[in-house]
Amino acid sequence: MAQAATKEKVVLAYSGGLDTSVCLKWLQAEKGFDVIAVCGNVGQDENDLAAIKQKAIDMGAVASFAVDMREEYANEYVTLAIAANGLYENSYPLLSALSRPLLSKHMVEVAHAFGAKYVAHGCTGKGNDQVRFETSIKALDPSIEIIAPVREWNLHSREEEMEWAKAHGVPVPTTKKSPYSIDDNLWGRAIECGVLEDPWCEPPAGIWTLTADAQSAPDQPEYLEIGFESGVPCSLNGEEMGLVDMIKTINVKAGLHGCGRLDMVENRLVGVKSRECYEVPAAQVIINAHKALETLCLDRETQHYKFGIEQKWATAVYEGLWYSPLKEALDSFCASTQACVTGTVKVKLYKGSSTVVGRKSPYSLYDFGLASYGAQDTFDHEAAKGFIQLHGLPTTVWSAKQGPAAKEMAEQSAFEEKANAVSAA
Amino acid sequence: MAQAATKEKVVLAYSGGLDTSVCLKWLQAEKGFDVIAVCGNVGQDENDLAAIKQKAIDMGAVASFAVDMREEYANEYVTLAIAANGLYENSYPLLSALSRPLLSKHMVEVAHAFGAKYVAHGCTGKGNDQVRFETSIKALDPSIEIIAPVREWNLHSREEEMEWAKAHGVPVPTTKKSPYSIDDNLWGRAIECGVLEDPWCEPPAGIWTLTADAQSAPDQPEYLEIGFESGVPCSLNGEEMGLVDMIKTINVKAGLHGCGRLDMVENRLVGVKSRECYEVPAAQVIINAHKALETLCLDRETQHYKFGIEQKWATAVYEGLWYSPLKEALDSFCASTQACVTGTVKVKLYKGSSTVVGRKSPYSLYDFGLASYGAQDTFDHEAAKGFIQLHGLPTTVWSAKQGPAAKEMAEQSAFEEKANAVSAA
Amino acid sequence: MAQAATKEKVVLAYSGGLDTSVCLKWLQAEKGFDVIAVCGNVGQDENDLAAIKQKAIDMGAVASFAVDMREEYANEYVTLAIAANGLYENSYPLLSALSRPLLSKHMVEVAHAFGAKYVAHGCTGKGNDQVRFETSIKALDPSIEIIAPVREWNLHSREEEMEWAKAHGVPVPTTKKSPYSIDDNLWGRAIECGVLEDPWCEPPAGIWTLTADAQSAPDQPEYLEIGFESGVPCSLNGEEMGLVDMIKTINVKAGLHGCGRLDMVENRLVGVKSRECYEVPAAQVIINAHKALETLCLDRETQHYKFGIEQKWATAVYEGLWYSPLKEALDSFCASTQACVTGTVKVKLYKGSSTVVGRKSPYSLYDFGLASYGAQDTFDHEAAKGFIQLHGLPTTVWSAKQGPAAKEMAEQSAFEEKANAVSAA
Amino acid sequence: MAQAATKEKVVLAYSGGLDTSVCLKWLQAEKGFDVIAVCGNVGQDENDLAAIKQKAIDMGAVASFAVDMREEYANEYVTLAIAANGLYENSYPLLSALSRPLLSKHMVEVAHAFGAKYVAHGCTGKGNDQVRFETSIKALDPSIEIIAPVREWNLHSREEEMEWAKAHGVPVPTTKKSPYSIDDNLWGRAIECGVLEDPWCEPPAGIWTLTADAQSAPDQPEYLEIGFESGVPCSLNGEEMGLVDMIKTINVKAGLHGCGRLDMVENRLVGVKSRECYEVPAAQVIINAHKALETLCLDRETQHYKFGIEQKWATAVYEGLWYSPLKEALDSFCASTQACVTGTVKVKLYKGSSTVVGRKSPYSLYDFGLASYGAQDTFDHEAAKGFIQLHGLPTTVWSAKQGPAAKEMAEQSAFEEKANAVSAA
Repeated sequence: MAQAATKEKVVLAYSGGLDTSVCLKWLQAEKGFDVIAVCGNVGQDENDLAAIKQKAIDMGAVASFAVDMREEYANEYVTLAIAANGLYENSYPLLSALSRPLLSKHMVEVAHAFGAKYVAHGCTGKGNDQVRFETSIKALDPSIEIIAPVREWNLHSREEEMEWAKAHGVPVPTTKKSPYSIDDNLWGRAIECGVLEDPWCEPPAGIWTLTADAQSAPDQPEYLEIGFESGVPCSLNGEEMGLVDMIKTINVKAGLHGCGRLDMVENRLVGVKSRECYEVPAAQVIINAHKALETLCLDRETQHYKFGIEQKWATAVYEGLWYSPLKEALDSFCASTQACVTGTVKVKLYKGSSTVVGRKSPYSLYDFGLASYGAQDTFDHEAAKGFIQLHGLPTTVWSAKQGPAAKEMAEQSAFEEKANAVSAA
Repeated sequence: MAQAATKEKVVLAYSGGLDTSVCLKWLQAEKGFDVIAVCGNVGQDENDLAAIKQKAIDMGAVASFAVDMREEYANEYVTLAIAANGLYENSYPLLSALSRPLLSKHMVEVAHAFGAKYVAHGCTGKGNDQVRFETSIKALDPSIEIIAPVREWNLHSREEEMEWAKAHGVPVPTTKKSPYSIDDNLWGRAIECGVLEDPWCEPPAGIWTLTADAQSAPDQPEYLEIGFESGVPCSLNGEEMGLVDMIKTINVKAGLHGCGRLDMVENRLVGVKSRECYEVPAAQVIINAHKALETLCLDRETQHYKFGIEQKWATAVYEGLWYSPLKEALDSFCASTQACVTGTVKVKLYKGSSTVVGRKSPYSLYDFGLASYGAQDTFDHEAAKGFIQLHGLPTTVWSAKQGPAAKEMAEQSAFEEKANAVSAA
Repeated sequence: MAQAATKEKVVLAYSGGLDTSVCLKWLQAEKGFDVIAVCGNVGQDENDLAAIKQKAIDMGAVASFAVDMREEYANEYVTLAIAANGLYENSYPLLSALSRPLLSKHMVEVAHAFGAKYVAHGCTGKGNDQVRFETSIKALDPSIEIIAPVREWNLHSREEEMEWAKAHGVPVPTTKKSPYSIDDNLWGRAIECGVLEDPWCEPPAGIWTLTADAQSAPDQPEYLEIGFESGVPCSLNGEEMGLVDMIKTINVKAGLHGCGRLDMVENRLVGVKSRECYEVPAAQVIINAHKALETLCLDRETQHYKFGIEQKWATAVYEGLWYSPLKEALDSFCASTQACVTGTVKVKLYKGSSTVVGRKSPYSLYDFGLASYGAQDTFDHEAAKGFIQLHGLPTTVWSAKQGPAAKEMAEQSAFEEKANAVSAA
Repeated sequence: MAQAATKEKVVLAYSGGLDTSVCLKWLQAEKGFDVIAVCGNVGQDENDLAAIKQKAIDMGAVASFAVDMREEYANEYVTLAIAANGLYENSYPLLSALSRPLLSKHMVEVAHAFGAKYVAHGCTGKGNDQVRFETSIKALDPSIEIIAPVREWNLHSREEEMEWAKAHGVPVPTTKKSPYSIDDNLWGRAIECGVLEDPWCEPPAGIWTLTADAQSAPDQPEYLEIGFESGVPCSLNGEEMGLVDMIKTINVKAGLHGCGRLDMVENRLVGVKSRECYEVPAAQVIINAHKALETLCLDRETQHYKFGIEQKWATAVYEGLWYSPLKEALDSFCASTQACVTGTVKVKLYKGSSTVVGRKSPYSLYDFGLASYGAQDTFDHEAAKGFIQLHGLPTTVWSAKQGPAAKEMAEQSAFEEKANAVSAA
């Protein structure tokens, strides 16, 4: 199967679908490359990896890899997202933005192993993923050249693409294409396109596959107890559990209760707004639980400042800066805050809602004696007087010199002036 | 009823409850003041204002006012909170923090009208409201002296307080005191104390009065369409409506579906954490709808930066800085962004969840042609290549000089050095 | 001079120099445009506008405009920069970034007047100004098409460009080209290229024209008193003065004393670092004076939060977002803070330093009685105790539960456990 | 000298001056304590530690310690300040704010060693240092009780204090007290009070002791080359040097040239503004050099975000939160950014100015090929077009839908409507 030694090699991110299959062939036919296919299992629904691997070979790839990246994904990527409560625009848990840098890393490693100078991906020119792939790859090895066949070729419609595929021996799906564009992995599932492109239109029931409709969800609530150790989820309902299993289990349980559906208009990195729907049962439950535990375990100043850090983290990751010094520094900040984020959070699942109803920690900064209005009160009420006086001092001085009091004085003296003028007259 | 002219006058924030009734009497008995009572209707549940006004007179107040502040509250306080999506620690819609400055303003006005140099409130020494009252009053008139009887007196328990009340002719409630401490107004209802002081304990059903339990809520969802004009809610299901009515209506409708319950551990201004529960059906539905409309009507840069502005706004208001130059400047920022936040948002209420399922605006920045992956695509895919190249350029250079690529090179050259050393040997 | 009616019209930003002269000819020769030249006087050194205007006509422009924009520049652009203490990366006073949007506005107005659908500028493909021109123009009229001849043509060197110029009748300068690239206007002068491209190399004396070398500056210091009214400089040494005159006067006076030289490495918008030198005597003196007045007239909370606003403002303007909703909202914030920034600042100029040595304001929030440690002290020292207690409470609790105290306790109890184990053995 | 075993022990921060000497005696006389004196050498001017130590014993201290903390101060406190470019309100290098937590740490250690439950300091009730001492001590051991004699006693004037001192055998200085209040250590010298309390008054020449007056400084400039290794200054003019020596040497050299004087109005933590003068030759030179090196070694995103981190760091340290989880997390962020901040900075000292005139680094992100406008240009000018298009896309869409273009269209259509109405009439 190996081609003449003089051909350049390219490492292609390969999913087995039509687009990347056409890419695989196009890179050979139009560019004269030897193609090395890499397919990663990050927990997506369709993952008969052996078949995908073989399909690449069948279409002429000189080598083909199918890699189970799930443990790496959960433990080195998702954990950082949990520590940062990573939600782009306060909502989207970054599922595609987290997996692209991991795939990029494996592709660069394969490129190095094969001495390939090129890497290719199947993204279009208006999405976010092209940016994430290319920025990640360049951050890992700036000498690698990137090829984006879909941005380059002149196949302007699905029909043209299928025509080209047939003509070049690329297997074409016989079922009608879904009107939706899907990306999924352990951390959730993204749905866009079709009727969703009208942001006034309610998402149709048919787009959801991980989550039940709330109306058909069980009539009885279910409780989960999620244990955290230094910010990392480590047990479910008292049972220790690895993160991959925990995410899979919560996706099923919370999905069954209809939890974790998102419907939003989001600002893409390339400057356009798009309407996106997501199913993220585990991501939503875990991040909310983690936030609740932080309200116990982080002091006020840290908690408040971390809100801004979290937004920057999510934006940086959304924008493809996973491998970047800013993201590393933000991770260091977050890591420093997680040492004592240890404890248990109780979450109630019911008809589409997941609600935190209890939280406890051996390191809790909630102090019953200080908080209580009851007989056990240990708070020094006297202290409040002095505190308020100095807390309010800048505003008090402002009022006297510039604010309401000053204005009143100014008006008063203007009035008196006028009155004096009148009486002098 | 009027006392000797030589007595000093104090204006007391009066609610008609035991605590402020004891204050009213204590200010006369222990401090020798003439007391002027002011009670404001900001939409709280218990508001037989005429009776409260009379009760103050009956207990010796030299004057008593009951003021309907609801329109002022909705139109001059809540509207700003909506523009700022005002949620302290991303959750609490600031209901008590919004009403205190309004009450303070009326108290200062009454003080000025009566030439009173003193103002009093019935807050304890460990809550937030003492700070909000005192900072607001000093901001409006720094010459006013503030008295906080509850912080000052030595009645250490409920029993001692009731003893003192009986001894001084203050009517004492005959029903058992609720274990919870409540504050409520148009914008929601706060519940604390009792078993809630254990943050692991799920809030008992009995604490909720504005919202149905999700399990007993209707089995059919209900949709609301909320219309906004420049950031202000102005119509419900197509019918124009003033803000007071809109809030009341949504409180009922969303409350019926069990929406708007909050359960959180929050950082009080005085430095302690406390567990708080809130019922905020209208506040939650309106703020979420407003945020959704902003995702259509604000450009990315404004939207992202406003997230930080909103957190600062909420913290400033929580901390009693309603009347302050920072809060004014933040309001100016927000006002500048709201001109085109006009449109309609569709919200689905069901079993405890309120979900935005559609949004539209004549000023929408969502551009179908730019966003679509379909045939109507007007986006210039070519532009992406140059964009990504420069977007990623700093990271690319970093990689080459300091990052992964640099490290690899350094290791490589260390390896070669060693290899050379070996072969030279 | 008018061409056939069928030709498309383009409005060119014209400076009279070689590059834009070649552009002017190139747009006619290569693109077949009717060219309308616009030259703006924003206070740059070389401004024989009549001659430049005529030169454009001589080279075939169908119309040519020379506009004195200095008042507009000072009063509508520089004033906002002063209110925002606009310094990119805390240093660069944005002189080119302020003038480009103004020039763009005039070009779009001319385009509208002439029904031109195209606008052209002479910037290269790696600087900031191309971005500022194009983003500003698109923000003012998204239907206008932009042409950047220098980015498009294939004249790869100065020699080729001069060759082309001679061949097409463009007057070519006979003097040797300066090795430096210069941009200047009222608000300062930028110098780049040549030996400055080595950031280790000290800027040679020859690059400076607005500022004396400190070593040859006068041996006696000079004092300036700058008066501000609501944040706008309005008087110099007690004499009322318009902003254009004030900037010109301070440029001369402070320049004479060697003040206002900057030497920095800055992050360009297109992702590269560049070494830039600036001469900004007036900008530096005025912004420092304005900051000093703000330390008197802004309360702490506003002042601290405004630091972040200022950085965002400077970055947005640097990046070409002058006409954008974010910039407008930031301006609203700043405007709200400037009402009471009224007063006088005393600045000392000497041998390259400009130092604020005094500041006063009728609205000063500096309160002598509160600040003084002397006999006039009016500060309530008792208040401090309560203040400190609550200010430090979160850290105190943290220490007990998670911090040093907790660690010590944990070690202690581990030690005791071990000791017990030993004694039990 | 040891007292009866039943006396409680207090650890006093002792400087040897009148105030802390009176404290020492007052704690014995009025409070009945056994006093343990601790005096730290952090590089202040007056540091005959042996004499101070003996003086405490002479006045009845049961134990007295004089500790050389300079290495610890430089290496564990000042280094973090350099990494964070720690300047409160962008100006004040935090010299007192850095030393107080270090002194507090030693006092707590002594308290633990002696089993003392009390710690005392000599600060007044309106400054910052009381907050820093008390917050630091409570953060290190929340069980320690703090005594602030100066806040507590009723010696209202200098005269009363000296009277009390004489009556109780405290040695009283025979020279007239300076009108200024001074605090100094390695990192600089603070001067307040006296005529400085008028912020319009230029600081008199007599207040400065570390820095020459610019007018009497040498007529020839001097150059320093400061080497940094991972953010820490490590060599001067090519010679390796420990940080204590480096600071001392630069204080002398830069002070000789009149560099490092500051004159500012600053917001104290207790809510008042105060006028402060500082002499910080080494701090200013080193921080400016460090910042200049960061412009080479940090990528844009990190550099910009770090500006906000730095302000938060400085504010937290100013406010006494040295030992706090937020400060630790901010340190982690900074540490992560410093790995490659290695290189050399050239600083020119002359007549009061210290100016960076060159910087170089083996990890420099300044790329000559990318930055140069000359023949060596490696930048892809084509990329700019696509970049600008997407960079400006949100503003372009905004203009069309809400901004200038939309307004023009709206006016146009209003005009046409009117015109139609007219023609229809």
